Amino acid sequence: MNKKRVAVFFGGKSFEHDVSILTGLQVMQVLDITKYEPIPVYVDVDGKWWTGKALLDMKNYPIDENIRATLHHIAISVGRGDLTPRFEILNPKMFGKKFIEFDIAFFAFHGSMGENGPMQGVMEASNIPYTGADVLSSAIYMSKTDTKAICRSIGIKVLDEIVLKKPNINESFDVKSLTKGLKINFPVCVKPANLGSSVGVSKAVNEDELQTSILQVFKLDNEVIIEPFVENLKEYNVAVMKNLDGEIITSVIESPVEKHEFLDFKDKYLASDGAKKTGPAKLAVPTEGLLSMGREYNPQITDEMKHFIETSAKKLFGYMGATGNPRIDFLCNSKTNELWLNEVNPIPGAFAFYLWEKSEHKINYAKLVDIIIQNGFKNFDAKNKNIDLKTASSIIFKKK
Amino acid sequence: MNKKRVAVFFGGKSFEHDVSILTGLQVMQVLDITKYEPIPVYVDVDGKWWTGKALLDMKNYPIDENIRATLHHIAISVGRGDLTPRFEILNPKMFGKKFIEFDIAFFAFHGSMGENGPMQGVMEASNIPYTGADVLSSAIYMSKTDTKAICRSIGIKVLDEIVLKKPNINESFDVKSLTKGLKINFPVCVKPANLGSSVGVSKAVNEDELQTSILQVFKLDNEVIIEPFVENLKEYNVAVMKNLDGEIITSVIESPVEKHEFLDFKDKYLASDGAKKTGPAKLAVPTEGLLSMGREYNPQITDEMKHFIETSAKKLFGYMGATGNPRIDFLCNSKTNELWLNEVNPIPGAFAFYLWEKSEHKINYAKLVDIIIQNGFKNFDAKNKNIDLKTASSIIFKKK
Repeated sequence: MNKKRVAVFFGGKSFEHDVSILTGLQVMQVLDITKYEPIPVYVDVDGKWWTGKALLDMKNYPIDENIRATLHHIAISVGRGDLTPRFEILNPKMFGKKFIEFDIAFFAFHGSMGENGPMQGVMEASNIPYTGADVLSSAIYMSKTDTKAICRSIGIKVLDEIVLKKPNINESFDVKSLTKGLKINFPVCVKPANLGSSVGVSKAVNEDELQTSILQVFKLDNEVIIEPFVENLKEYNVAVMKNLDGEIITSVIESPVEKHEFLDFKDKYLASDGAKKTGPAKLAVPTEGLLSMGREYNPQITDEMKHFIETSAKKLFGYMGATGNPRIDFLCNSKTNELWLNEVNPIPGAFAFYLWEKSEHKINYAKLVDIIIQNGFKNFDAKNKNIDLKTASSIIFKKK
Repeated sequence: MNKKRVAVFFGGKSFEHDVSILTGLQVMQVLDITKYEPIPVYVDVDGKWWTGKALLDMKNYPIDENIRATLHHIAISVGRGDLTPRFEILNPKMFGKKFIEFDIAFFAFHGSMGENGPMQGVMEASNIPYTGADVLSSAIYMSKTDTKAICRSIGIKVLDEIVLKKPNINESFDVKSLTKGLKINFPVCVKPANLGSSVGVSKAVNEDELQTSILQVFKLDNEVIIEPFVENLKEYNVAVMKNLDGEIITSVIESPVEKHEFLDFKDKYLASDGAKKTGPAKLAVPTEGLLSMGREYNPQITDEMKHFIETSAKKLFGYMGATGNPRIDFLCNSKTNELWLNEVNPIPGAFAFYLWEKSEHKINYAKLVDIIIQNGFKNFDAKNKNIDLKTASSIIFKKK
């Protein structure tokens, strides 16, 4: 049996560049090498793609000039046509190989570019199988407002919101004019509409704080969401996917333990000495942070709450076409037990393997990665079976 | 002043391949050559991209082997990085040029691939300016169900619907089991959820017709929508975009004159002898059909109806981020004057120039194309101004 060559993409133009490196390396470590051959594809912050053995060792990050000199600079030629997927080598050695063939693109990106549709689009436009959510659901999941709109339409409870767009007529604008006339009951939660990982999320208790928060968000995103601040906040997360029988299943539910009033990027991805780290340019050790963060599995919640979380996750995922393996996050007022679907992470950190491992399905990281790959091939087959221009033409032109 | 090189993309893997060729050629004919230099990019049904002078002449379609031999096979190398946009020439002549630089991708695609996000994603992933709607809104507009979900969420009236997914557990399935238990008030309108141009749309007056319609749609799309059939149907369309001052404006309203009970693909794109044409493989003369189709401009409707159509179009377009220049279609019961937003065409045939030409703004085709290009560059600048990883890092890591 030929091994399938799995091109594992990580890094990318994203605030979560470094976290993505960790997830990418994890995937290649757990990959079943009796079935698959990993090809690391590191996307740097300038959008250049690289491959090479040095990328497999975490010690080599951040990639410096010496390491880079050992790598192949690679690219996909969109426009080549529907042929065997391959990377062109842009800096081939004399008499060296010119390209690297592969079978499927495995996306281990976190954050905007990579998780939100464009990279998925590259594969669609090149007719290359890829893992995870399709273009449409990747794009919607990464937009908090559109995800909530879909939820409202299919009857899943979400918080009300006010959405403000960044005025782009000129550079400077008066933030007071933006909030003037809005009827706001403080406290509120202020967050960017299109970034994951609680990046830029803050609480505002008055007009001044609100304006400060809005200006901060506008440095990160074109859209800001203002929502009621949920008192007695507790968060619940659940992962959802299709198993290999095509059934939609959910993981165990987790409740992240709050250190502050709600989780921010630092809580999620940095170790407790995170304050010393200087930003995305330096490789943080996010998994430590991620895994050492307090979590409660199977939290004590009522059957109704459990049912709401699981059925809402399945319903939204099914409605969106059931591609990928997102983690879906809920907000709860722990005094009243009211629940709202909050947001969807199309590619959660470490693929939320710890939620599957502890679920009744007992799916470990290696098995999870295997399912993700097999579902990627299945999605590709289903799509190509469906788009049959020849069969279709007889229907299009048939008179009613 | 250097002319901007505009790469006009047309063709593509789509049921509307041929119509797109016409729109592409029109765009290059009306392009202001004192400001722009057109580069034709023909995407064939196998996903191969071609350029060359022969593509400018309609007589050369469909492209045969002799014509093809004169063309350059081109591609974009995604992974090259954020450098000057260029096409690599995959079949260079000896000592000939190896690449063709350009400034912006102009999309004249109609139908699925091209209009629905992936091609936009290729440009996003390569940091290349492009015209029209962004990845997210392209993908949503091409999904009738998700467009309607957004409308419901922001308070724009749409019809109720039942959505059925194609069972993909195995090849054969019992269509009766799909419709069993559904409470359906006939007549209904049955349509694919993800195709434009009324492709595959039909009316069903009973269970038998419904099942036949569903099976036909499943040859074209994975999702079928069943909606109440609107009696005394009249359709109204309006185009919407940002002008060069950044204001959202609408075109004149049109009402297509019905030949049958409602428009199908043939009405929209084929001349009256369309029955003789054999399908998408042969180049139809769609613009004749499109333009010879009966249309009524500024139809006699009440002020309330006009207001509903214009404000709904502006509201949805603004909410979606105001990229592109879609045509938005409405359904009306002409006895009761009830109106529903029906669907959005992110790239309408001939860019709906005839609606802009006849509008109070008096924008002709050449001016429209100019606005589309300038807005493409503006969207690119706004996005890149916004994603500033360096500025952002100080915010992300700042303690609340």
